[in-house]
Amino acid sequence: MKCRKCTKHAVINMRQHKLALCSFHFLEWIKNQTQKTIERYKMFTPDQKILVAVSGGKDSLALWDVLQQLGYQTGGLYIHLGIQGVGDYSQESQRLTEKFAKEKNLPLHIYNVQQETGSPIEEIAFYNKRGKGKPCAVCGLVKRHTINEIANQFDYDVLVTGHNLDDEVAVLFGNTLNWEVDFLRRQSPVLKAKKGLLPKAKPFCRFYERETAAYALLAGIEYIEEECPFSVGSTSIQQKEILNLLEHQRPGMKLAFYIKFLKNKKSIFQNLDEDGDTNDILYVCPTCGQSTQSEGNCSYCNTIKRTQLKKNK
Amino acid sequence: MKCRKCTKHAVINMRQHKLALCSFHFLEWIKNQTQKTIERYKMFTPDQKILVAVSGGKDSLALWDVLQQLGYQTGGLYIHLGIQGVGDYSQESQRLTEKFAKEKNLPLHIYNVQQETGSPIEEIAFYNKRGKGKPCAVCGLVKRHTINEIANQFDYDVLVTGHNLDDEVAVLFGNTLNWEVDFLRRQSPVLKAKKGLLPKAKPFCRFYERETAAYALLAGIEYIEEECPFSVGSTSIQQKEILNLLEHQRPGMKLAFYIKFLKNKKSIFQNLDEDGDTNDILYVCPTCGQSTQSEGNCSYCNTIKRTQLKKNK
Repeated sequence: MKCRKCTKHAVINMRQHKLALCSFHFLEWIKNQTQKTIERYKMFTPDQKILVAVSGGKDSLALWDVLQQLGYQTGGLYIHLGIQGVGDYSQESQRLTEKFAKEKNLPLHIYNVQQETGSPIEEIAFYNKRGKGKPCAVCGLVKRHTINEIANQFDYDVLVTGHNLDDEVAVLFGNTLNWEVDFLRRQSPVLKAKKGLLPKAKPFCRFYERETAAYALLAGIEYIEEECPFSVGSTSIQQKEILNLLEHQRPGMKLAFYIKFLKNKKSIFQNLDEDGDTNDILYVCPTCGQSTQSEGNCSYCNTIKRTQLKKNK
Repeated sequence: MKCRKCTKHAVINMRQHKLALCSFHFLEWIKNQTQKTIERYKMFTPDQKILVAVSGGKDSLALWDVLQQLGYQTGGLYIHLGIQGVGDYSQESQRLTEKFAKEKNLPLHIYNVQQETGSPIEEIAFYNKRGKGKPCAVCGLVKRHTINEIANQFDYDVLVTGHNLDDEVAVLFGNTLNWEVDFLRRQSPVLKAKKGLLPKAKPFCRFYERETAAYALLAGIEYIEEECPFSVGSTSIQQKEILNLLEHQRPGMKLAFYIKFLKNKKSIFQNLDEDGDTNDILYVCPTCGQSTQSEGNCSYCNTIKRTQLKKNK
């Protein structure tokens, strides 16, 4: 198969776009499409400071690469969670992230959870056991808190994450199967700023995972291929398999499902205010100074204090 | 495993209800649950005349059986479509439907498409080719027309169909993947009467297919096991397979998906009028006298006339 734009050999065929491209034109296409997505959803502008949440995986590193090529002012944040897994997952992710930042001469903030709180994420989860013993909920809490802390400290305007179409569709699919109306009306490629919280954007939300993987590969980015060991067997991974079957039956199905949802969201939820959360953030945590939904310490500070208390018993 | 209500051996275990039952108590449970569904969705009352659309399959015959046991005034309508398939699908379905009606001493209307129009359904579809050559669209048109004709002629008040939970969930799933907002807001276990159209109800909408199959088996109903040969490979059958995988991962998923949709439908679509179709039926077909959406002959009469004209060319 030949590239649609030149006579060279095509390295990827995107059936949903009826588009086959060579390496050069694919890399260019990803950059152009990212720029279009940023503008389409009014994500951010070149005069804003962008904080890229990087995990060392293909999506976040590819995103950071594209954004710097597009001329945006970016800095990366790597949060070392202290996850072991095969081959020391967190350590290896950090190494690859640092390597990337150094090569591209980009500013990188490293936050080490163990160094800052005294415990790696698994230990914090252990002493704050909720759900099925997986640290995912606590991990989300720690990440949100850290991102806000770094963003405030270094005056970032927007947070971007490397969520791709497959990620977004898995979340949408899960929320739809459960008809989680509140979550559905809030799912968006861009979330406006709320009191004390950074606006968030997902510039890769319209790319399939195979496209971001192809970008990382062709752009020569070295990334951690291993998935987070705690994601194995999760509902979202099971649902991704189901969605892959649906995509196989009807190529382009994921993109259509996501785009049609975004298009119809306003008409479906037209009299529901997208920002009309009853959980408005109103208080300031006396320990860390971040915004919180109730008086007293925020969830993060409570969680860390509980960990230290129980650990030292 | 033992029956929850007595000490007998359980013949079925319904994980989503955490309920194992013996044959006697399962048959009783199906009847009670059907009555509850009829009342919950205000489907019909014992003083109304119910027309049961019967295909000779397990769902419609089981439904007819349950309704007559619950004391409702029912009559059946079998539409002989002239589908051959393996072992003469239409002929065998009719034979089993007649056998059932005779055994139960219930009134049955038989409508033979070839006798009434001069052509079996495949021929009508052939001369009115639309879509992928499958007669499903034309088949729906002919069925709707016939049901209205019989209902008017014999003064029926309500039409009931044997659609089970798996059928309803497959339709809901398909419409959700495409975010078909108009179809979504109209999907309901009960559809109110519209000008010239019978109200429609699906009293088995909360039963899994395996439950209606178990009912038919345990109640000694002989039914046609073969599926309509035109349904093979259809999108809805592919999607049913996907839904079976999801159900396998999380038992009760289908029921929850359907029930939560019905519960949330009002809040999601609260400012969309469920009956606010722009396609209101306003005209009377000069040929058959049924209601139609535009002036002149209705789609059914046009289709039949086109068939006769092309056939006799």
